Amino acid sequence: MPDDTAPTTRRQFLASAAVGALVAAGGARADESASAPAATKPRLELGFPTYMFKNYTLDQTIEMMRRVAVGHICIRSNLLPLSSTDEQIAAAIRKVTDAGLSVYGGGVIYMRTEPDVGRAFEYARAAGFKLISISLRPELLGLLEKKVREHDIRAAIHNHGPEDKLWPTPAAIHEKVRTLDRRIGICHDTGHTLRAGADPVAQTLQTADRLMDIHLKDVDQAAAKGHSLELGRGIMDVPKFLRALAKIGFAGVLGIEYEKHMDDLLPGLAESVGYVRGVMAGMARQDASS
Amino acid sequence: MPDDTAPTTRRQFLASAAVGALVAAGGARADESASAPAATKPRLELGFPTYMFKNYTLDQTIEMMRRVAVGHICIRSNLLPLSSTDEQIAAAIRKVTDAGLSVYGGGVIYMRTEPDVGRAFEYARAAGFKLISISLRPELLGLLEKKVREHDIRAAIHNHGPEDKLWPTPAAIHEKVRTLDRRIGICHDTGHTLRAGADPVAQTLQTADRLMDIHLKDVDQAAAKGHSLELGRGIMDVPKFLRALAKIGFAGVLGIEYEKHMDDLLPGLAESVGYVRGVMAGMARQDASS
Repeated sequence: MPDDTAPTTRRQFLASAAVGALVAAGGARADESASAPAATKPRLELGFPTYMFKNYTLDQTIEMMRRVAVGHICIRSNLLPLSSTDEQIAAAIRKVTDAGLSVYGGGVIYMRTEPDVGRAFEYARAAGFKLISISLRPELLGLLEKKVREHDIRAAIHNHGPEDKLWPTPAAIHEKVRTLDRRIGICHDTGHTLRAGADPVAQTLQTADRLMDIHLKDVDQAAAKGHSLELGRGIMDVPKFLRALAKIGFAGVLGIEYEKHMDDLLPGLAESVGYVRGVMAGMARQDASS
Repeated sequence: MPDDTAPTTRRQFLASAAVGALVAAGGARADESASAPAATKPRLELGFPTYMFKNYTLDQTIEMMRRVAVGHICIRSNLLPLSSTDEQIAAAIRKVTDAGLSVYGGGVIYMRTEPDVGRAFEYARAAGFKLISISLRPELLGLLEKKVREHDIRAAIHNHGPEDKLWPTPAAIHEKVRTLDRRIGICHDTGHTLRAGADPVAQTLQTADRLMDIHLKDVDQAAAKGHSLELGRGIMDVPKFLRALAKIGFAGVLGIEYEKHMDDLLPGLAESVGYVRGVMAGMARQDASS
């Protein structure tokens, strides 16, 4: 079974934690396969959305996650096709958890028709996902609301930048979901927010009550033609963003994305993970000494 | 020619810079091969000592440095044998600088006999090194002093932990060199300091006037049997160490070492580089907001 109880426990813990503690350390130490109970760790846990592993198998993905000591995975269709049988889904989830990793969600899942919505939730139910990141046509929001209630699965709509006329930014999503069931929210992709010319920090503060999932991604410029690169090398202000997450008490997994060398992913992904852990450590040290 | 003028210029700049500015950013952005004049960059530059590349060629080393956007290299005998002719040395240096990298030093060079000392300085002269990291028998210190004066090349003795009865820690080195020519100093290897049961921060503050070079390395335990691992995953307090470097106005290159997966170095090396850049960014952000 995926470890879906952790976020709630962590949220309770973090609500009472100081900002410095919240962002302390931020990564595994020494052991590469750890996924100890999150409630004992006063920090934001790192995880991986998995579109970036599209040129790799699930086994290779697991191996890379162990290498960089990241313990939380959001499984996407490239690693577990939507057409999988319940048995295939169960086997994939078991492979992940047997490797010591925890599944924090599924997706991004695209829904264009009503049957797509039904199929997505059957897939999520079979996988045990309590959170799915999605994209869908706005006319399907009513059906989506029915499904999140029926399955008690949260659905976070993913913003995809300036080319996405429906969901370019978290604010655009928030505008359409703010009156819907609270299990419908936002998966904030900071790279696409930047490409849309918006500020990820302002958008985070503005949409905090519906922020469920994060794709923390850096890009080389605040323009539609911006490209993903190693976290810390582009225009994304990671310290300021983490400060905003602490301010709003974000208690989900901090998903890290890197899409520059997708045929040779590990070095840039490792650099990105190291960078985020370093920012957390640098911020925590400063909080402790101030 | 190696870019040896940068450290002095940088020292002058940094002497007047705020702590926050000193540790700001700390890494290349976007461009992977940059080695622009250091004086314009208010930050500690990252570099690589090169023992960790012992299973790789110079070409492979250069390629990895470009991949992680680290622009400064300290060349060791595994990449450029001490027995090389002046022509071979010149060709290697040219290969490095043609790749857009700058050479900040040579070594660690081991000197056991008087001829070893002479040979080391001839090698350094041919390479244009202005700084060499070394290890030598204490009875050679008199000859060393003569050579640093003759060549005007600085020599930093490298501490090698508890097994090194001569030079286990920076303090042990300081004790023996503090009355010698000021061109003789210390190459502080933090991993070996930790393995010797000493505190890298205290040692840095205590030996500041002779600190010339750094091998910033993390280990999994403060014991002789401690092993190198990705920076940030072990016991090394990198934020506190960088704060100490800022306090003493260290103006050299911050050398990063990682020796865990030496047959597949890049992922852990990239993670380590990302971590150090992240710590700098996290500390700078905090300084700016406090």
